[in-house]
Amino acid sequence: MDEANAILLLSCPDQRGLVARLSNFIFQNNGNIVHADQHTSKSGKLFFMRIEWELNGFALGREEIPVVFTPLARQYDMKWDLHFTDYTPRMAIFVSKHLHCLHDLILRRHMGELAAGVEAVISNHPDARELVEQFGLKFFHFPITEKNKDQQEARELELLREMKIDLVVLARYMQVLSGKFLKYYGNRIINIHHSFLPAFAGGNPYQQAFDRGVKIIGATGHYVTEQLDDGPIIAQDVIKISHRDTVADIQTKSKDLERVVLARVLRLHLENKILVYGSKTIVFE
Amino acid sequence: MDEANAILLLSCPDQRGLVARLSNFIFQNNGNIVHADQHTSKSGKLFFMRIEWELNGFALGREEIPVVFTPLARQYDMKWDLHFTDYTPRMAIFVSKHLHCLHDLILRRHMGELAAGVEAVISNHPDARELVEQFGLKFFHFPITEKNKDQQEARELELLREMKIDLVVLARYMQVLSGKFLKYYGNRIINIHHSFLPAFAGGNPYQQAFDRGVKIIGATGHYVTEQLDDGPIIAQDVIKISHRDTVADIQTKSKDLERVVLARVLRLHLENKILVYGSKTIVFE
Amino acid sequence: MDEANAILLLSCPDQRGLVARLSNFIFQNNGNIVHADQHTSKSGKLFFMRIEWELNGFALGREEIPVVFTPLARQYDMKWDLHFTDYTPRMAIFVSKHLHCLHDLILRRHMGELAAGVEAVISNHPDARELVEQFGLKFFHFPITEKNKDQQEARELELLREMKIDLVVLARYMQVLSGKFLKYYGNRIINIHHSFLPAFAGGNPYQQAFDRGVKIIGATGHYVTEQLDDGPIIAQDVIKISHRDTVADIQTKSKDLERVVLARVLRLHLENKILVYGSKTIVFE
Amino acid sequence: MDEANAILLLSCPDQRGLVARLSNFIFQNNGNIVHADQHTSKSGKLFFMRIEWELNGFALGREEIPVVFTPLARQYDMKWDLHFTDYTPRMAIFVSKHLHCLHDLILRRHMGELAAGVEAVISNHPDARELVEQFGLKFFHFPITEKNKDQQEARELELLREMKIDLVVLARYMQVLSGKFLKYYGNRIINIHHSFLPAFAGGNPYQQAFDRGVKIIGATGHYVTEQLDDGPIIAQDVIKISHRDTVADIQTKSKDLERVVLARVLRLHLENKILVYGSKTIVFE
Repeated sequence: MDEANAILLLSCPDQRGLVARLSNFIFQNNGNIVHADQHTSKSGKLFFMRIEWELNGFALGREEIPVVFTPLARQYDMKWDLHFTDYTPRMAIFVSKHLHCLHDLILRRHMGELAAGVEAVISNHPDARELVEQFGLKFFHFPITEKNKDQQEARELELLREMKIDLVVLARYMQVLSGKFLKYYGNRIINIHHSFLPAFAGGNPYQQAFDRGVKIIGATGHYVTEQLDDGPIIAQDVIKISHRDTVADIQTKSKDLERVVLARVLRLHLENKILVYGSKTIVFE
Repeated sequence: MDEANAILLLSCPDQRGLVARLSNFIFQNNGNIVHADQHTSKSGKLFFMRIEWELNGFALGREEIPVVFTPLARQYDMKWDLHFTDYTPRMAIFVSKHLHCLHDLILRRHMGELAAGVEAVISNHPDARELVEQFGLKFFHFPITEKNKDQQEARELELLREMKIDLVVLARYMQVLSGKFLKYYGNRIINIHHSFLPAFAGGNPYQQAFDRGVKIIGATGHYVTEQLDDGPIIAQDVIKISHRDTVADIQTKSKDLERVVLARVLRLHLENKILVYGSKTIVFE
Repeated sequence: MDEANAILLLSCPDQRGLVARLSNFIFQNNGNIVHADQHTSKSGKLFFMRIEWELNGFALGREEIPVVFTPLARQYDMKWDLHFTDYTPRMAIFVSKHLHCLHDLILRRHMGELAAGVEAVISNHPDARELVEQFGLKFFHFPITEKNKDQQEARELELLREMKIDLVVLARYMQVLSGKFLKYYGNRIINIHHSFLPAFAGGNPYQQAFDRGVKIIGATGHYVTEQLDDGPIIAQDVIKISHRDTVADIQTKSKDLERVVLARVLRLHLENKILVYGSKTIVFE
Repeated sequence: MDEANAILLLSCPDQRGLVARLSNFIFQNNGNIVHADQHTSKSGKLFFMRIEWELNGFALGREEIPVVFTPLARQYDMKWDLHFTDYTPRMAIFVSKHLHCLHDLILRRHMGELAAGVEAVISNHPDARELVEQFGLKFFHFPITEKNKDQQEARELELLREMKIDLVVLARYMQVLSGKFLKYYGNRIINIHHSFLPAFAGGNPYQQAFDRGVKIIGATGHYVTEQLDDGPIIAQDVIKISHRDTVADIQTKSKDLERVVLARVLRLHLENKILVYGSKTIVFE
């Protein structure tokens, strides 16, 4: 008996009968829908849907589903992805010198709270090695200079491909990734930015927030695109600050926020609840 | 051309094919679904759904929909309600001496932000009359004593029935309504309670919060049941307080919260986004 | 017996003994301090203080306080203001076509929640007249064209001076005020901006937030300076949005936020809890 | 040169001149006040103050301060504590089977974010041993049965005294401590409760929150007293939930909250910013 569920994430031009057509596809193959969520963008006349159904009793095998679904998808001009809830995605974490998000992810993994395998931790600095290896995980050090940047990134990408990494998490990684890298991992690279984007994009947002005298700071989890800090936002959260908070206090408060927002964003991604639509996301919470 | 939408809110025992069956019902009658949201309660094995579709082009007239839908609903043992988005519900507001929520609702109505008609304001005190009548609304004063309570409430209920009131809002009304009254308006009476329920149920929650020394206070919007302060919760919100806040400061902060939470709860109810399930609500936001 | 309190707000270069010197000044004149709050900016080496004491039993009369305090203030190079809690500031509200904040302020005043007199409502549009006059308040219509802008603003300023207005509130006022106007009312003009500044400064922040796909929107209350949307921030608050929210939904949610943030900012200003320091504020909450 | 600061936390019956008297004490000994915060409880007519000043240049040595201050304190009937910012308190963490808060504290310590030494981790279960020892910390296993409870607790208390533990943190510890234990460590035992107290005190607050159908859950950090879950609250925070959240989802969301609230509460305690007043706290943030 197959205890897992299948999840279909799709988008297509809106038209009558889409919900009926899709739910019939599941029903006629004897599937039991456990979640169905749908959204229609009026401005773009686009239809988005996430359907999750039990594989137990479903008439089609896992490999048959895409074969049978493809003609239907073509008819409605759908973009779609199929996921199974018992697959554990293989994740690589990139990090530089600020290790709080890395630490948090390692502990969540250790406690069984993270539905992904931490297959590799990659850094341009050696600082994280000890902690990473202490938890039995693999650490790779790729020092980066202006000269070797392209070459090192190519080696990183090769490593990720060899390791069959599904998802790249930039847990406070301070290097910009090239278009080639981004293209290969399109919408599968998640970054945590330590400000409430679009405010304080770019460098040192703690100092920027202090200088501007804002009364609330934030953190933003987003997919990475070539436009720095401009990718589709997945989740944001904020915390109050006051005139008493120094830049160091802002950093301390923000670090808690970054950990929590990154964990939430990963949970949404790993539960296949996010559809990217242009520069924005649809999050079926 | 009918510009309105129809909304079906339903619940029934969970079984395979419900989403398909319901979306087919819309599709086969040439309806265009604009929103569909569904929830399955695993513990209760119950299925809940809200479907909204365009009446424009729909094959069935407004009166025909229930006729045609009834056999299907019976087959699956459904409880259901049908609403149309161009109907403006008729609302009565009950109030005692604290008028901030009443004021807020009157202004929202005045600004066109409230999708309901304020048909009557009913109070056991005369204080609100001037403001209510200043905005061209009807004010009814029903003074209540221990002796005349049953009689006055019966007269109020009669008035509401005559005025064809759809929804009763207790905007800080300090009298307990009888079981008879509640039965007649089951799940159509909304109360705003000035605490974060279940904390500080009963009288004077501001003082209770002060005495306990909590660091956050809240407000709760809920449907009214015979168990005081124990009805199904629709929405809650909170605000921080500190040792500097006196009971009067707590009241001032809370009043803002009460206004906003009550307005949010009304919006959800008037958009037919709430299903009641036992002592809880399903809110399709 | 004088039931009011005196409040001293001051800033000066930091040095040893300031708290002692100031509290001695109160004590030696037989004053009872009810609140004292102090802040030292390490970067700027500046000292800020707010002291509130009872006038009841104080040895100096209200007019004597500044006379006796001036030598002490000079010695430490202080900037300072003296306020009395029984003075009700005279407020003018500027508004254009979005009236929700105006409505809210009028109702708060009507309910006795606003510690200021609403002496004048000034608008470049006639829309607000009816509501304003209904509450017995004065409405002044100054239509503004490109040609008459300077002239009209000069007339507005003259009116404010004649009416001895202490505080100007821009409650969604769509005209930029001139440097001359700002200079006259320096740090006594409060604006509510309908975004989480510095994000989405300038026009149509609701649309900007929608286009960027943020998951949280905000509102900002600040003092007005010549740099548009760049004045010292007093308070901010936020609310979550999702992909389901249209621009109209964002507006509806934001309007609640704007009302609450503006009311909070006014409360802080009217309680003399704010010190401006360069482009930032110190808020003694 | 002494780079540390001294912090005086005190409370006494309110009377004129207290701020002056205390700031003079610092000033006359050539101290530079860097923070001063004060609160007067009107209902209780009590005065509370926290003063922090630089030891650099102060005329009194660390041991002389209490000697010289005692007569002044007696005169005004003060309760007081004196702290120095370069002292690192010695902390013991008690834990049972839920280890997320323990993990978080260990990592914060590892990252240098926690201004206390983790001298001992004590548990009635062996589960945490591996992780604790992996970070080079000491783990003590005290299995507890109904029979040996008193005896084991006595041994724990003896261990804490031998180790000169200053602060006990119950990081999800499921055993009730005796009055004797609490008396010894009065106001130096901090508990994190996984609900928004006073709602859902006692066992299984996640299930209680699910059953009641609340829309917001919380976590509460408080000092421990003999009345279970009734001690003085230090800080609280909340997060939204919906009908989609199962008890397991509520747990996942709550665990993030518990970590953050516990860390915040510890920071406030370790910075000597909390005064306990009856069943409430004054938190000088």
